[in-house]
Amino acid sequence: MCGIVGIRDAGGVSFPIFYALYALQHRGQESAGLTTFDGTTLNTHKGQGLVAEVFNTDLLHGLKGSVGIGHVRYPTTGANRPENIQPFTFRFRDHLVSIAHNGNLVNTSALRAAFEQDGQIFCTSTDTEIIAKVVIGELCRSGSVEDAVNLAMRALRGSYSVILLIDGDLYAFRDPLGIKPLCLGKTPGGYIVASESVAVDALGGTDLRDVRPGELLKITADEVISLQIAVANRCAHCIFEYIYFARADAVMDGALVYDVRVRIGEMLHQEEPIEVDCVCPVPDSGTAYAIGFSRSAGIPFIESLMKNRYMGRTFIMPTQRQRESAVRIKLNPIRDHIKGRSIALIDDSIVRGTTSRRIVEMIRGAGAKEVHLRIGSPPIIAPCYLGVDLPTRDELIASSRCKEEVAKCITATTLHHITLRSLVAAIGIEEGGLCTGCLTGCYPIRIPDEVADQRTVDFVGATFQTSLGFYEES
Amino acid sequence: MCGIVGIRDAGGVSFPIFYALYALQHRGQESAGLTTFDGTTLNTHKGQGLVAEVFNTDLLHGLKGSVGIGHVRYPTTGANRPENIQPFTFRFRDHLVSIAHNGNLVNTSALRAAFEQDGQIFCTSTDTEIIAKVVIGELCRSGSVEDAVNLAMRALRGSYSVILLIDGDLYAFRDPLGIKPLCLGKTPGGYIVASESVAVDALGGTDLRDVRPGELLKITADEVISLQIAVANRCAHCIFEYIYFARADAVMDGALVYDVRVRIGEMLHQEEPIEVDCVCPVPDSGTAYAIGFSRSAGIPFIESLMKNRYMGRTFIMPTQRQRESAVRIKLNPIRDHIKGRSIALIDDSIVRGTTSRRIVEMIRGAGAKEVHLRIGSPPIIAPCYLGVDLPTRDELIASSRCKEEVAKCITATTLHHITLRSLVAAIGIEEGGLCTGCLTGCYPIRIPDEVADQRTVDFVGATFQTSLGFYEES
Amino acid sequence: MCGIVGIRDAGGVSFPIFYALYALQHRGQESAGLTTFDGTTLNTHKGQGLVAEVFNTDLLHGLKGSVGIGHVRYPTTGANRPENIQPFTFRFRDHLVSIAHNGNLVNTSALRAAFEQDGQIFCTSTDTEIIAKVVIGELCRSGSVEDAVNLAMRALRGSYSVILLIDGDLYAFRDPLGIKPLCLGKTPGGYIVASESVAVDALGGTDLRDVRPGELLKITADEVISLQIAVANRCAHCIFEYIYFARADAVMDGALVYDVRVRIGEMLHQEEPIEVDCVCPVPDSGTAYAIGFSRSAGIPFIESLMKNRYMGRTFIMPTQRQRESAVRIKLNPIRDHIKGRSIALIDDSIVRGTTSRRIVEMIRGAGAKEVHLRIGSPPIIAPCYLGVDLPTRDELIASSRCKEEVAKCITATTLHHITLRSLVAAIGIEEGGLCTGCLTGCYPIRIPDEVADQRTVDFVGATFQTSLGFYEES
Amino acid sequence: MCGIVGIRDAGGVSFPIFYALYALQHRGQESAGLTTFDGTTLNTHKGQGLVAEVFNTDLLHGLKGSVGIGHVRYPTTGANRPENIQPFTFRFRDHLVSIAHNGNLVNTSALRAAFEQDGQIFCTSTDTEIIAKVVIGELCRSGSVEDAVNLAMRALRGSYSVILLIDGDLYAFRDPLGIKPLCLGKTPGGYIVASESVAVDALGGTDLRDVRPGELLKITADEVISLQIAVANRCAHCIFEYIYFARADAVMDGALVYDVRVRIGEMLHQEEPIEVDCVCPVPDSGTAYAIGFSRSAGIPFIESLMKNRYMGRTFIMPTQRQRESAVRIKLNPIRDHIKGRSIALIDDSIVRGTTSRRIVEMIRGAGAKEVHLRIGSPPIIAPCYLGVDLPTRDELIASSRCKEEVAKCITATTLHHITLRSLVAAIGIEEGGLCTGCLTGCYPIRIPDEVADQRTVDFVGATFQTSLGFYEES
Repeated sequence: MCGIVGIRDAGGVSFPIFYALYALQHRGQESAGLTTFDGTTLNTHKGQGLVAEVFNTDLLHGLKGSVGIGHVRYPTTGANRPENIQPFTFRFRDHLVSIAHNGNLVNTSALRAAFEQDGQIFCTSTDTEIIAKVVIGELCRSGSVEDAVNLAMRALRGSYSVILLIDGDLYAFRDPLGIKPLCLGKTPGGYIVASESVAVDALGGTDLRDVRPGELLKITADEVISLQIAVANRCAHCIFEYIYFARADAVMDGALVYDVRVRIGEMLHQEEPIEVDCVCPVPDSGTAYAIGFSRSAGIPFIESLMKNRYMGRTFIMPTQRQRESAVRIKLNPIRDHIKGRSIALIDDSIVRGTTSRRIVEMIRGAGAKEVHLRIGSPPIIAPCYLGVDLPTRDELIASSRCKEEVAKCITATTLHHITLRSLVAAIGIEEGGLCTGCLTGCYPIRIPDEVADQRTVDFVGATFQTSLGFYEES
Repeated sequence: MCGIVGIRDAGGVSFPIFYALYALQHRGQESAGLTTFDGTTLNTHKGQGLVAEVFNTDLLHGLKGSVGIGHVRYPTTGANRPENIQPFTFRFRDHLVSIAHNGNLVNTSALRAAFEQDGQIFCTSTDTEIIAKVVIGELCRSGSVEDAVNLAMRALRGSYSVILLIDGDLYAFRDPLGIKPLCLGKTPGGYIVASESVAVDALGGTDLRDVRPGELLKITADEVISLQIAVANRCAHCIFEYIYFARADAVMDGALVYDVRVRIGEMLHQEEPIEVDCVCPVPDSGTAYAIGFSRSAGIPFIESLMKNRYMGRTFIMPTQRQRESAVRIKLNPIRDHIKGRSIALIDDSIVRGTTSRRIVEMIRGAGAKEVHLRIGSPPIIAPCYLGVDLPTRDELIASSRCKEEVAKCITATTLHHITLRSLVAAIGIEEGGLCTGCLTGCYPIRIPDEVADQRTVDFVGATFQTSLGFYEES
Repeated sequence: MCGIVGIRDAGGVSFPIFYALYALQHRGQESAGLTTFDGTTLNTHKGQGLVAEVFNTDLLHGLKGSVGIGHVRYPTTGANRPENIQPFTFRFRDHLVSIAHNGNLVNTSALRAAFEQDGQIFCTSTDTEIIAKVVIGELCRSGSVEDAVNLAMRALRGSYSVILLIDGDLYAFRDPLGIKPLCLGKTPGGYIVASESVAVDALGGTDLRDVRPGELLKITADEVISLQIAVANRCAHCIFEYIYFARADAVMDGALVYDVRVRIGEMLHQEEPIEVDCVCPVPDSGTAYAIGFSRSAGIPFIESLMKNRYMGRTFIMPTQRQRESAVRIKLNPIRDHIKGRSIALIDDSIVRGTTSRRIVEMIRGAGAKEVHLRIGSPPIIAPCYLGVDLPTRDELIASSRCKEEVAKCITATTLHHITLRSLVAAIGIEEGGLCTGCLTGCYPIRIPDEVADQRTVDFVGATFQTSLGFYEES
Repeated sequence: MCGIVGIRDAGGVSFPIFYALYALQHRGQESAGLTTFDGTTLNTHKGQGLVAEVFNTDLLHGLKGSVGIGHVRYPTTGANRPENIQPFTFRFRDHLVSIAHNGNLVNTSALRAAFEQDGQIFCTSTDTEIIAKVVIGELCRSGSVEDAVNLAMRALRGSYSVILLIDGDLYAFRDPLGIKPLCLGKTPGGYIVASESVAVDALGGTDLRDVRPGELLKITADEVISLQIAVANRCAHCIFEYIYFARADAVMDGALVYDVRVRIGEMLHQEEPIEVDCVCPVPDSGTAYAIGFSRSAGIPFIESLMKNRYMGRTFIMPTQRQRESAVRIKLNPIRDHIKGRSIALIDDSIVRGTTSRRIVEMIRGAGAKEVHLRIGSPPIIAPCYLGVDLPTRDELIASSRCKEEVAKCITATTLHHITLRSLVAAIGIEEGGLCTGCLTGCYPIRIPDEVADQRTVDFVGATFQTSLGFYEES
């Protein structure tokens, strides 16, 4: 739940990276940072807050260079400390390395212990520093980035999309299961790698393709060199990217997220048809789903909740109290569209249920006859250990309640979740190619005991092969 | 193009005013301010920026009192100087007066000259100080707020919705033609007057009614006392509030703005039916129009431009350069929804044409076969002298070009504007009750020569009667 | 207790005014402001804090113009509100007036009431706005600055050194008794008026002379035109400027303040000789006094209190609590210079006695055998109504205690204050030319009952004559 | 040229550390930081600017704990990057280490290379991280802080006074030659180690003694445990601490710095008596010297340059341009004390000569007949590699000029520097106990070729013995 970007452009990269981070702002609003290489040294500026708050024109003019990387962060690991704001810069021999990472490791403890065995010490509490140590350690030994990433892919368990700047060389790689997204684009002046294709669009570029799971890219001024470091027997793309994280206008693995959501909306209706007066989205995340539902049902789409455009997303706020007050201020029910009507209310997901209950109550308070809640994802029943900031199992409303109980809790007349089968069909990737951990409790990577919630963690592990041999989790 | 609010609530007003200003943020993003009366004195905090930037919890806790007023500002008169941030506070005898104003006067020069004749001097360059001087001057003479507002309504030419705090007494009045909006609501703990009903909603209150043109309200702890100071022969509600300014979820003169816009969208299709593949709004202002168009035409509604949720509205940005770059970053065309299709693109208005051209080009660049632009307002051909921040006549693309020329300029396949007749019908108020100056060049108030663009200014003046006698412009 | 400056210099004035305010920083640290006239309009920047905090290079480059004024403020009247930061700018007819003022009026209430009788209202709670209203009001009537200042000198009771910018014309005047200082200098590129000659020095200029009591200066590009508006039968220069406020390197009425203080120190010894091991100043204000004492006594001068150079002056801190903690952090006793010694400790004044007691205790705590306190001013027994921020009578330790009681309170072995006679001799102005209100309770201006502390206020009033006739207080 | 502090106090340490840093502010004004241990974790706040700018009451209240360390920084190594602000915090195993360091290493490259050989990477460009890596590396191996410091003292070449917080344990150690100062004090509530005794004074504590060269202290709640890790054949206390850095009220190795400077002043006169009208210091650093000179010569001490109290020290400003403008604004010549007189002007040192020339010119410009410059240090002819921020040899005015040439450059009538012999006598330590590198070009530690200016570097190396054996540089 971070956004990363790396750009090479002879015309300068600080402004392009700034705009790309703007396009990725939805992936993290706690902090932003940017590093460029000016031919001699790395220049970094980073700070807490939104991209537009952290940077200004003067600062961007000062960050010279034709290659650089950027990061927007929402803390999944490591407290919200200034020292944890990425990109991180490390020095070794006469080299400078800057790194930006999206994802979450599950074997942090073991790796950390191994390094400490060697007398290494840590400057931050992040997974990113561990990734840097693994990569740079091997880089020192072998001098080869390929070898270093090869080793990293064997050592690191979890999700990681990584962009590296080694002096002036730009690299990007993605974990063997391709859990977190990473895409490659061509811009008018060079190349870009970024978490989502919307960053490519922001620069007027062309989305070339997703970086492949297990692939290492070296991006030079003239070309993109690909090395397939690891080959796995399956993929495990994060299903929550399709449901909530990714911007609707992002293209992931060739599929437009907006259209995936429209299809889910259509199936939501088909799975459980209903007679209502109108179809209303919970803005903004429910809009595409509601359009699909309306289209399939032939029932008018109309907005009944107006969102204040001067606020952020609720989901991403750090404390429960902030989340609660944000709902009240940010959404205004349109009484004339609600009063006396039965409404199909469409949203993307239910996490704790508090926001959903508040919204349903708000619509009931505005005089709705019936509120039929339709959700574009199956019930979320398990935590995520691989980079999505979901709460613990006990806080997940669906982890211990059946559909009827949840409906009652949130005061909905009826409740229906899309089935996993339909969801997978809408995405267009076979279920085996997705990580559905939060929906099934079954993860593509073994979650170590000290990390996992003990009750129902299961896994269908992946295997993969690198030039160093075959790897299988057991 | 400002937002104002006044609240009386025994439980404290700083937080309610803050939330109300949040709901009115779309009416002005340059500065925000808040004044409360704590039983002894007025406490004010104000600053440049968004409501959420200017205030914080500590500041709000410090602004004690059961009555207060607030303001969000976009500069129509007076440069963007700190001293021009409202509310303004004035002292006279042992009294303190705080004032918040939305609107624009056209006889500023004459009034200013008259005061200067008397040796008065001015602390700011705003109309608001002139209104304060008129009101307080008479208040000093007669001791009566009623008399003071009576005199003010005879002296002031232009639009003015005003909220006054005189020590602990809360008053509100609206110009005799009711140009700028002002509504009255009941909250759980008291009463609120505000520019739009959405501020009432934000507090969980009930929208009672619009303040009447020429009406003065005194809001006490227990009741709202109404005095009809002036009675005019017509109203002149700003038509641009319905088209663009007001939030879609606002209710004005009993009509939900959203539904007005849906009806306009329906009529847009009926006036000039067209065969296209899909109906796409320019977000966010075009959405309701597009829903109406889609519904009337039976053509699918789909988003083809995705808006970055972390930016403000373009219209409201102060410089041309800022407006230009903002368009590029903030809107991303969804190629999969556009490529090879003919599209009905729906927006609320065309001002300079630069934004429209950029958007049409963007959609063409994403591969659209045809782009048929449909606009929810008639061509804007004349400046506004009454509070809408429109550019000069020369900058208005439609002031000197026919429909075909404008379509060509902005590279649209076809262009259609709603007719004034349909627009008025959609609003549901007779044309004589609206100010249509920007659409017709004919204003409800005579625009003095030194203010007016000389070419085509015309007016159908209003007359009104107060206890001081009959008033007619000539 | 403010600092003011006005500069005319064809080469631009923003940087010179900035440097001049820097030199006057000791006169006010709460806020700073600067207004320039660029040929068309006035440009102002002001803010809370030190000069170096309020301004930066970019801001100064933006304040164009060859004439301007500046102000540093410590609040004597008016709460510490942003709206009270000077210079103030007013508009009348097509003119802009900016004003900076040092002093305090005693007939504010009466003047305010008179204006309010006329229906005038006030934007701030400051004397400065009243002065502006008096001046501008008459300026409007007569069109003559001379007449306006003439009227002002008859209307205003109190201390006022004023610098006015009327569009591009620079004026300065000083009250008929010359209570607060104001001097005129020639700079390489033009002229300067400022509270102290140190501002002239800061620009590499030449101190020409003090502005005369009752004099009005008009400063053009080529010359300084003097008009003697009022002629009084006496002067009343603030004696506390010599004792504490003015920088030691300032020249006032031809006398170097440093040398005045050295002479006071010499007389302090001569009035009451004493045998001690060393003479120690309370830094920094006691240094010149201590040098004089040491020289006259032939006893070594040595520092025994080291001041932390990164803090401000205690006297000027707004709250008692801030004053207390500041003493502890800012002064460090040098044990090796104190232990076992009898010390003559020299300071400029005792106000509440809390700081003095703390310092004496500190020196005793470091092992001094005896601490003989010598003070460069007579006991302060009465409040100041004319611009010095002294506390109320009850808080003045000497207002109700004899010398022995004060010595006991502050734990000094002995205490001696300079006599008024010696002090006046050291200054070199006859006593009748000084305001000694705080030392005698006898003021040069009648203090109105509603302002005065009732117990011992007395006055030896001045009379003066202007072209409008003779004025005598009764 | 940094200031460090470590405090243990059951009553909380954040405020005491804050006050101690305030007292050490003269040692570094670029940034400040503070880390406390609250029983569970380390809490750090740090930022760029003065202590009073970086911290506020709320922040200090939030930094809980009965043990902590602090740092003020002026960059000698490492650019002025936020990531270089100390204290640094590192993690290893389950431990947290925070470190604050004053000094400069000369074998950084070799140590860095050795770590990189091991695959270690660096987060900052500072010596401090290298010290941390050395210490923590050995701590991991042996688990013993004593062994870790033992190893560090053998590995590190250069000056280092270090304070360590290992979880809740507080340690301090000083390099075997004792180059940079470090002292131990008892406070009312516990113990303190700090760069100078003035920090002890600031807390109302008692200066116990200097930490011994090569000594390691462990400071528990009840006692201070001393371990003499290394014993050298000589000391090398930085002579510039006595001349300029240390506050005059600091006690170093039992000597009050103020008195050392007074003695130097006396000797300055005795070495080269002169007839002048008065003795004037360059404030503030020349004051104690001038008092000594005046006393020995029987010539009156008087200030002729008045310093603006609202500015920092010139010496410490980072750029030449800032240094130049600062001189003009900050020092005002007192014409009445200068005109027609011959003056002995006393300062502590001459570095580049630019400030001295400007001051002498200023005094000449004010009409001095003669300006005889007397300097409390011998000519500075060589760079410092051990922590004093002196410029390169080419920029040192005395590195290539004889006394007469320097006098001419800076336009002094005559110039005299104290001789090294007198200086050493005034300090009261034998020359062999001081580092006089900048005065002689002969350093106590061999300066590696890649660091040293090649021309005249010489050294009289020290040897020392630790439990690991005998160490001798060759």
